[in-house]
Amino acid sequence: MSQEKDFSVEYREKVATFNKELAFFLCEEKGYEKTLYEAMNYSVLAGGKRLRPLLLLESCKLFGGEEKKALPFAAALELIHTYSLVHDDLPEMDNDQYRRGKLTTHAKYGQALGVLAGDGLLNYAFEILSEEAFKQGKSATLAMSILAKKAGIYGMIAGQAVDLFMTGKETTPEILDYINERKTAALLEGALMAGAAVAGAEGETLVCLEKIGRYVGLAFQIQDDILDVTGDEEKIGKPLHSDERNDKRTYVSLIGMKQATAQAVAYMEKALALLQTLPGEKEFLTKLLLSLTKRDS
Amino acid sequence: MSQEKDFSVEYREKVATFNKELAFFLCEEKGYEKTLYEAMNYSVLAGGKRLRPLLLLESCKLFGGEEKKALPFAAALELIHTYSLVHDDLPEMDNDQYRRGKLTTHAKYGQALGVLAGDGLLNYAFEILSEEAFKQGKSATLAMSILAKKAGIYGMIAGQAVDLFMTGKETTPEILDYINERKTAALLEGALMAGAAVAGAEGETLVCLEKIGRYVGLAFQIQDDILDVTGDEEKIGKPLHSDERNDKRTYVSLIGMKQATAQAVAYMEKALALLQTLPGEKEFLTKLLLSLTKRDS
Repeated sequence: MSQEKDFSVEYREKVATFNKELAFFLCEEKGYEKTLYEAMNYSVLAGGKRLRPLLLLESCKLFGGEEKKALPFAAALELIHTYSLVHDDLPEMDNDQYRRGKLTTHAKYGQALGVLAGDGLLNYAFEILSEEAFKQGKSATLAMSILAKKAGIYGMIAGQAVDLFMTGKETTPEILDYINERKTAALLEGALMAGAAVAGAEGETLVCLEKIGRYVGLAFQIQDDILDVTGDEEKIGKPLHSDERNDKRTYVSLIGMKQATAQAVAYMEKALALLQTLPGEKEFLTKLLLSLTKRDS
Repeated sequence: MSQEKDFSVEYREKVATFNKELAFFLCEEKGYEKTLYEAMNYSVLAGGKRLRPLLLLESCKLFGGEEKKALPFAAALELIHTYSLVHDDLPEMDNDQYRRGKLTTHAKYGQALGVLAGDGLLNYAFEILSEEAFKQGKSATLAMSILAKKAGIYGMIAGQAVDLFMTGKETTPEILDYINERKTAALLEGALMAGAAVAGAEGETLVCLEKIGRYVGLAFQIQDDILDVTGDEEKIGKPLHSDERNDKRTYVSLIGMKQATAQAVAYMEKALALLQTLPGEKEFLTKLLLSLTKRDS
């Protein structure tokens, strides 16, 4: 079996294991508000690479942390990521009807529930996080605070806002980086940092992980933009050329496919070089990061 | 000076003091995402009774807590309340153009920013709360967890969802209570409980405060429904008869004005009776609660 094959098997196993754990955090679909929980669960179960929770769990392991303690953080992070997609897909935002080959939440449950299910996912994430912070203590409280900030108004939400404001406007590589650092990289930084924080890491270590997350995020977003032009619609699960249709500038439209690809590879190399300075067993994590600029979905 | 006058002066002073503290939590309006922060600040500064933060601060005082420690919780709670209004006003929800005499956030900044500013306010609240939980420790983490749950998917958001689903449908007093307990009472319960938790209260005390908050919330909502029929449009700052227009059943439409008024008074009496069983100086808090069923805006 080739090493490539090994990785994809291992990756699928880890995703399956995480999904099983994630199931414990799904809502029981009952009460007068049953449909709210259905819409939330639908959004969470619509698939996805589970990249952020896997990064969080691997980072925790790197510093000798217990997976059991990190799992609620991984689940909460995936809920936060999911809410951001649900709201981003709304008609007043990107107006997307499909994601990962399935109807988006608002397309299936209506626009009002699109808003409410998104709110629910975000708030529920913090219900889980604050309960864990209360149970686990200081390191977990730090991890929660990191996730809150990275998802927050100077992190992911700022990125969403600038992305919205720049739609249809000319841009520069600097503004694109500004958006991508916030909209995409912030949650990946949060994943790596929070996982380590749960395991008790702090200070310089967290700063290093933040840098790794930044480079990974920038590389990841460029690959996303590339796939939106050259990808396989079936594999991606949504129509191609959404950036062009939504009048959004990307690295590909700004500096061309060849240079964009080189840029993504360069960012990922920086990330991997920094990763090597950290302790612990990082074979899977290295392969996981490498796979991000080679993925086709 | 009459006692009534004393209270309203004291109340206005407390609101002014809180507003000054709240100003420290406003966003600096800069960066490419400047308009996001403008929309968030606009939403927070659009007025409001500041009832929830005042309840939180008074409850903290009741148990000998330091106001300084409770203030970030009061501010975060007001941000959560504000986000819920911003999203509730969206076209796909209640579609309100005015609130407190001012354009609603989406009416002023557009629908996409209505969604994003709301998301921002909710997430920012948890950024503040988790930072305080980290600084202050266990009691503060409990307070945060309480607020997260009361605002959450079995609390306020569940209430919003049922309110949405029941629009245009026949209802019963039981379903109305189910909605009001979640949509309105939950955050008031959270205010009283979290304030006390910051001061170190726990167990039975929190249960008692939860009950008080529930009765206060039910009374408050009935008074809201009454004002929507008999109020002064100028004082309320939005058009009357929104429930009728939005095809929403209320206590007033269900059991009539006279019985609804009696019900609100009965709930408030239960709340005040429970309040008397608690220690501490509660003159202002008592008057504040009493004022809620007598208010005209």
